[in-house]
Order: sequence, then C-alpha cells, then structure tokens
Amino acid sequence: MSISNSIFLKACVREPVSRAPVWYMRQAGRYDADYREIRKQYSLVEICQRPQICADVTRMPVEKLGVDAAILFSDIMIPIGAMGLDFEIKENIGPVIETPIRSKEDVNRLRLFEPGQDLWYVLETIERLRHQLHVPLIGFTGAPFTLASYMIEGGPSREYIETKRLMYSQPDVWKMLMDKLGEMIILYGKAQVKAGAQALQLFDSWVGSLSPDAYETYVYPTMKHIFDELRPLGVPLILFGVTTGELLTQFQHAGASVIGVDWRVPIRRARERLGTKIALQGNLDPALLQAPWNVLEAETRKLLEEGLRHPGYIFNLGHGVRPSVDIQILKRLTEFVHTYSEEWLAQQLTSSAQ
Amino acid sequence: MSISNSIFLKACVREPVSRAPVWYMRQAGRYDADYREIRKQYSLVEICQRPQICADVTRMPVEKLGVDAAILFSDIMIPIGAMGLDFEIKENIGPVIETPIRSKEDVNRLRLFEPGQDLWYVLETIERLRHQLHVPLIGFTGAPFTLASYMIEGGPSREYIETKRLMYSQPDVWKMLMDKLGEMIILYGKAQVKAGAQALQLFDSWVGSLSPDAYETYVYPTMKHIFDELRPLGVPLILFGVTTGELLTQFQHAGASVIGVDWRVPIRRARERLGTKIALQGNLDPALLQAPWNVLEAETRKLLEEGLRHPGYIFNLGHGVRPSVDIQILKRLTEFVHTYSEEWLAQQLTSSAQ
Repeated sequence: MSISNSIFLKACVREPVSRAPVWYMRQAGRYDADYREIRKQYSLVEICQRPQICADVTRMPVEKLGVDAAILFSDIMIPIGAMGLDFEIKENIGPVIETPIRSKEDVNRLRLFEPGQDLWYVLETIERLRHQLHVPLIGFTGAPFTLASYMIEGGPSREYIETKRLMYSQPDVWKMLMDKLGEMIILYGKAQVKAGAQALQLFDSWVGSLSPDAYETYVYPTMKHIFDELRPLGVPLILFGVTTGELLTQFQHAGASVIGVDWRVPIRRARERLGTKIALQGNLDPALLQAPWNVLEAETRKLLEEGLRHPGYIFNLGHGVRPSVDIQILKRLTEFVHTYSEEWLAQQLTSSAQ
Repeated sequence: MSISNSIFLKACVREPVSRAPVWYMRQAGRYDADYREIRKQYSLVEICQRPQICADVTRMPVEKLGVDAAILFSDIMIPIGAMGLDFEIKENIGPVIETPIRSKEDVNRLRLFEPGQDLWYVLETIERLRHQLHVPLIGFTGAPFTLASYMIEGGPSREYIETKRLMYSQPDVWKMLMDKLGEMIILYGKAQVKAGAQALQLFDSWVGSLSPDAYETYVYPTMKHIFDELRPLGVPLILFGVTTGELLTQFQHAGASVIGVDWRVPIRRARERLGTKIALQGNLDPALLQAPWNVLEAETRKLLEEGLRHPGYIFNLGHGVRPSVDIQILKRLTEFVHTYSEEWLAQQLTSSAQ
C-alpha cells in the first residue's frame, strides 16, 4: 500500500475507506518484550536521542501489530528540556522537574529553541522513518496546558492545584507561558512535518481537569492560534485529552481536524455534539484489553458500528496501551478491527445499493 | 432556624428558597487547624469510632463556616471493615487493604453486618448530632462501584485495571459483590436515617472511570435497587462522583433525587441534560478556593446565576475541600453565597412581579 493511498490519512479527511484504520496511543511501549529489552540498555530519553533506535522503536508496532499508522516515539518532555528546563523521567512516577515554573522570571528564562539544532535527533528520526515506513507517520507533541502542568507542578499531578493557582492568580504570567509554549509547538510541529510527519497529534492529556469556561479563557486562544498556524501545513491535526467530554466542541472550534475521544464519551454522542464534518478517533476503554476476548470483541464490534456510520473514523483506544497488556491481544484486536470493519462497510454498500 | 424550615432540605425537594443552601464536600478536614489538632491524638478511624469526638468534628464546619447542612464525618472504608475486610488508612496514600478481593470465595467471606451492633458508634454519633445540630445532617456512604474499587485494587487507583478486569472477566463474581454491597448500603443507609440522618449522600467517586455502556451493564441495576429500597425513607438521596458527566442521566434514572455535579460539567448543561425535575448540587472547581478572591467571587456569581435559575439548587464544590485551603476563604465564600443568592433571588421575584 502506498502512503498516498493510506486509509488512515483518508479517514482523517473523511474520505471513504474500505476498512477502519487502526493505531494505538502508546503503541510502542513496555507491553512489548523487545521494547523492554531495549530499555534495559537505554533510558526513554536516550532512545529519543538516538535516531536509529528511535526509528526502530517507532516501527516495531507497525511490523508486529499491523497498525495503519506509526506515531513518532518520543516523550512529552523532550521539547521542555530543549526550552532549558531540566527534567528527569523517574520509573513508575513520570517526569520530574527539580525547579518548576512559578514566576514571570521562570517563564522568561524559557527559550524558543531551534528544532533543527536543538532537537536534530527528533527530525533525523522522522527523516529516517519516512524512508522506512509504508504507513503514515504521526508527529507528536504535548499541548500547552498539559506541558505547563508538568512545568508548574514539577511532576505528574492528580489535581493540578499549582497549575490552576498560577493560572488564576497570575493570569499575565500564565498567558506568557501559554504563548511561549504555543510558539514552541508551532515551530516544533512545522519542523516535524517538514521532516516528513504526515499528521500531527497534540496531546492535551490533562486539560480535561478544566471546566469549559476555564478552558475558554485560559487555553482556547492559544489552541486556536496553534491550529491557525499549523493548518497551512495541510496535514491532519489530531487533538486528544482524557476527561475532555465537555471540551470537545471547543476542540473543534479551535481548529482540530481529528478529535481523539476519551472512552467515557460514546462515539455516537461525540457525533451528536460535533456533527459529521470532523473525523473522530478512539475510543475503546484500555482496560478492555485485559478483559476476556469475547467481551473485548463485542465491545469493539459495537464501537466500530458507531464509528463507521459516518466517514472519518479512526479506531484507537480512549487512552494509551498499558504495560500489562498482552501483545497477542493487541495483534488479534488489530486483525479483528480490519476484518470486521471491512465486512461491515461492504455490507453497508450492498444494502444501500439495493 | 428550625430543621423543618431548612433551606437545604427545601432545595433538595425543589421547593423555593430565599437563598442558596451551601455545604462543602469534606467540609470537616485537614484545612482546619482544630481538626489537625484532634488528628494528632486520634487517627481518622478512631475519630469515627468515638461518637462525641466524631459529632464534634461533624459540627465544626457548621459552627465555623455557617454552612446549611452537616455531613456525617466518616470514612468510606468504615462499612468495608465491618464486612470483615481489614484496611488501614495510610497518610498521604489513602485506604490500603492487604488482602484485596479477587475471587468468589473472597466475596462470600464478606458479611452483611448489623449496623446497630457492628457500627453502633456511627449511629450513636448521628443520634447525638440530631440533638446538637440546628441544620440537617446528611448521612454518608460509598456506592458499590467505588467501594468495590478499593476492595479489589487494595488501595486508591488511577486506572482501576484490576477492578475492571474482575468486572469483565468474572461477571458473576462482580454481580455477587455489587449485590452484597448494595444490600449493605441499603441496611447502612436505613440505619443512618433511622438514627436521625435527614438526607443521604452516596459517594460513587470513581465510577466516572466507566463508559456509560459499562455503567449500564455492571453498575446501574444495583444503583436502581438501592434507590428503590431507600426511596421509601422519604429523605433526599444525593449521588455524586467525579468525571461522571456522561453518566448523569443514568444517575437520574436510577433514582437519585439530587445529583452532585463535577466541575467539568457546567450546571447549565447538566440542566439541559436532566431537565428541571431534579435537584442539582455543585460544582465550583475546588482549585478556585486557592485563586484570588476576585476570581473566586466572579466564578461563584456565575455559578449561582446558573444554578438558581430553577428551584432545586445546592451550592457545593465539584469535589472535596483540599487540605491546603484557607479556612477564612471558605467562611467568606459561604457568606458571599448567602448574600449574593438572596439578593439575586429577591431581584428575580421583583422583576417577575412587574
């Protein structure tokens, strides 16, 4: 299959496809024994910094699972480091920053890096992958709120108290930080596409901790600006975050061309709220990967029948693959989605032709 | 103010009130220096087991903040312990169970206790409070999914993998557990009301980790049964959980008479989805308690204007008060809600009379 004929890219622009495209968030990761082997030798960041290894890791799920898109293997913190904020990824905790952002001076110290210079290894990884892959490559970046939450909390959080405190009590500093992260994301996204990424996914994983009103005031303007700047690249722009059911229409208005939906929102409801002029991606509860096959299959079938009702549907999970998942299940699921969606779509064609 | 004239109870049954009733989830807690003093002497569980101290702690926020309802000070694990499952509350972690529930045998071993015997101290606390309080007392219990999640995970969780694994792979064991917890909650709820609780809040804090379809199959039948059994008590039955925006209509159909709304769902949207025949409680983002006063006041004003548009609105947070909150802010907020809601409602009356 040539890339120009990719069912993933077609679904992103709501063109008809013969079967549902599939990929999985965190499809390269600890559930895979070969990945765990590589991690014995290299840290997560070290993998990101070594183009050949990083390209290999990115390609692994494409080859093993048969998914229809690759996503750049990276860490959400990589560009944060390039902005001058030191971080460490601690096992079973996540990214930790010794000196979190709390003031205007802290924000001023962040620098807008030059992707080609400071993150050359990311771009080289993409360039290599461009020649190696027979499916599209999705570029990867965090979105401003989620990046800011790590930078301000100093690590993963459940309540985002410090993030919201800064947002509410120093709105000018917050705005500066959002603007700066927005500019960084625009530069970084453009560089990834120039290097060969055929789509971009923005992970705003934790922005669902905001109410729609707070999102509108403190996040939306930056997102709108980012999408306005990235749209001319002509690649699908996917936006995803968990517990964002109430923010989906704002994601759409901001300019996302594909919306990643959390498993809490049935695809049928997302369609009701967003209409048919946008592609949807998702949204199987990742926990179902650890359910018996008959349950997983039944839920997948139901999801496909909802998703495929309108052009512009990409099968994915509602969040990332967990380390405890069995790779054989993921492989079987991918095959099942392919087969079942192909049958279902063919049947729809037949019955509408009658 | 006599209890029969309580604005809280009136709002629960959607009768007109002169001002918005206010209470806060976790209104007795570590943000209060006097509470922290008591905690130096007694553990959380020890407080629950000593009726006079527990009644004092329950009353503290009523006296200090001027809230319109008290909620029984308790821990969600108290009845779990009475069912025969040992737990420990670890500082900064939460409840931890050494031998979590994983099998049919584990569920069979759980016993339906006799509240009057095994949890006499809870009922005695309520009886004492009944004589001490001049505002209604809300009884307290966890709901089956949330209790099960602690029992199965063995502690707090972010993803509920083991809970969902048991739910999907041993649906008969899951059903037994839900049924048993349902029966326990019915017994425990009835005993609390008999002892003097004038309303009951069921905390299904973590059920928002389920999709609506999973909720329908694995949780809804038990909730429906619980509400059917508790309804004849004639007290308001409040149901609350975080990230439950997509489950609200199911909460309503199950039989909750008041629905606690997470801050992610604007009250105006909850009203659109649920109609006007139900009372709503909530839903200020708890993080706003740590914002500057002008931001907090503006958001509170906006919330009140949405909430008070229909009879049946109770001011609360969208989740519990955090330990880092300043008690003076909570006090000021309570006063502001009282004053502003009274003015606003009076104005509505005037303008509708014209």
